[in-house]
Amino acid sequence: MIPPSPVTLSAALGVVEFAATVAFAVSGLLAAANKRLDAVGVSVVAGVTAFGGGTLRDVLLDRRPFYWVEHAGWLWGLLLVCAGAMVLLRTRHFAVTRRALLWPDALGLGLFTANGAQLALDQGLPAVVCVLMGVITSVFGGVLRDVLCNDVPAAFSDHQPYAICSFIGGWVLLGMHAAGAPLLGALLATTVVTAALRLIAVRLDLALPPWNAGDER
Amino acid sequence: MIPPSPVTLSAALGVVEFAATVAFAVSGLLAAANKRLDAVGVSVVAGVTAFGGGTLRDVLLDRRPFYWVEHAGWLWGLLLVCAGAMVLLRTRHFAVTRRALLWPDALGLGLFTANGAQLALDQGLPAVVCVLMGVITSVFGGVLRDVLCNDVPAAFSDHQPYAICSFIGGWVLLGMHAAGAPLLGALLATTVVTAALRLIAVRLDLALPPWNAGDER
Amino acid sequence: MIPPSPVTLSAALGVVEFAATVAFAVSGLLAAANKRLDAVGVSVVAGVTAFGGGTLRDVLLDRRPFYWVEHAGWLWGLLLVCAGAMVLLRTRHFAVTRRALLWPDALGLGLFTANGAQLALDQGLPAVVCVLMGVITSVFGGVLRDVLCNDVPAAFSDHQPYAICSFIGGWVLLGMHAAGAPLLGALLATTVVTAALRLIAVRLDLALPPWNAGDER
Repeated sequence: MIPPSPVTLSAALGVVEFAATVAFAVSGLLAAANKRLDAVGVSVVAGVTAFGGGTLRDVLLDRRPFYWVEHAGWLWGLLLVCAGAMVLLRTRHFAVTRRALLWPDALGLGLFTANGAQLALDQGLPAVVCVLMGVITSVFGGVLRDVLCNDVPAAFSDHQPYAICSFIGGWVLLGMHAAGAPLLGALLATTVVTAALRLIAVRLDLALPPWNAGDER
Repeated sequence: MIPPSPVTLSAALGVVEFAATVAFAVSGLLAAANKRLDAVGVSVVAGVTAFGGGTLRDVLLDRRPFYWVEHAGWLWGLLLVCAGAMVLLRTRHFAVTRRALLWPDALGLGLFTANGAQLALDQGLPAVVCVLMGVITSVFGGVLRDVLCNDVPAAFSDHQPYAICSFIGGWVLLGMHAAGAPLLGALLATTVVTAALRLIAVRLDLALPPWNAGDER
Repeated sequence: MIPPSPVTLSAALGVVEFAATVAFAVSGLLAAANKRLDAVGVSVVAGVTAFGGGTLRDVLLDRRPFYWVEHAGWLWGLLLVCAGAMVLLRTRHFAVTRRALLWPDALGLGLFTANGAQLALDQGLPAVVCVLMGVITSVFGGVLRDVLCNDVPAAFSDHQPYAICSFIGGWVLLGMHAAGAPLLGALLATTVVTAALRLIAVRLDLALPPWNAGDER
């Protein structure tokens, strides 16, 4: 196998991070609008959902500059998306359903899992830490969103498989690298497996085991 | 224009940061006392409100030492202020009104906006990131305060202009630097504009547009 | 006095950090189980309680690698503990009482106080900052736990001495070093004093003064 050049690596990761960011911004914006925050609050929560997981990952990995510093133009993009959504939601009586959130959120989960685990792998961190960085990158944007909205994070309390899909997806990435798969293939497979697991779990209404046998859910 | 020497720059920023810290400590202390936290909780919340925004800014900009490490004496100052306020609030029946919080809070907002945006500018970051660092420095102390107090951050939900004043103030700083204004003038103008916008907005009872047309506020 | 070799220092601190981590993981796990989070949520909250204070300390002190990166095996240990506890709690009707949390929590408080203050001291930080780092290391794991569980942090609101025991313990460490005590003795004394203060305070039902005279508790 010919190792990918650093340029290819960087470009592939950049595309993955961009797509995941957009997916999460939309997911965060819709969730915050549902909470009836004001216009500033919706924009901030959308931004934190989009960039929070990646920023936490970068703080933990001591990476600089952040994605949103290197690509500062996307901050304008975020503001435009928020302003556009605001006009759209005002004029049409657009009902924001959980269903509408599902697809972009599953996609962002998969993309950030691949991105976070790959970046940790590039630093030579232990396998379990790489997988955990994928989970942190993909899940903690939503956790910060819920903390700002003063909710118990849905990822920890709704008994739907979410973080665990990212956890499994991270091991797919490590397994494919161990098997010598090309970088782009490994990133793509990780994204698809993670998102598919999430979508299947929701479709089949799978539930995590409750902590106590006596729990009503 | 003669560029300011590093010493002048450093001294000016130091004064700004000190004044903003005191203003926010008082604001945080009064808010926490209203929540009836215990003495430790009030001191911690006052400290987080005062130093939280600047510490988050320094973590994001990878700056060390923190303000409260470099000027460790101010930690003692904070404890003294808390102890003093505790005695004062116990002996007199001092009603802490929203009105009493308004002025120090608006001042802190303006001072930290100038300080945060200037520090990011010194690192050569893009304009929109500099403005955002001003907003993070000035607003996220209060956001952390509200998260610790288990409230939805007021900055995102009370429909009063707050973060947006900081956002506008940040552009004043960048505009004045682009126009070749002296450093101290730019810092002062930013502080005054931001604080004035906040005070005017509260006086005139301006409200951010609600997110949905159908929102009751 | 012969100064301890770096190896001894590192080993002693490692043992202290390990023991404190286990104590807090158990404490966090029991607390999260009480909140009826799902299996993922309990594991994450246990992990954040165990590693959160130390990770926040390392981010503030700009130390890398984190404890859980350097000793990645303990992440597996954490998952095993969570899985084991899950089975145990399901089969037996094990009532998790506040009493069961008291001892591991007090021990973790003491151990992390010693560890955090010592690490800050090694960086040559001012005395009050060292003491504060001990408090942050020992208390903020629990604060993050409560924030994730959407509670006002117990450390700030339950009027029981907790952070203040860590604060006093930190000064014991600094005092013993100033008096030329050996490293291990200073760490041990700090741990014992802090944990004992906490246990005595709970046993005697001591309460922090309420903030306002008019407060009912």
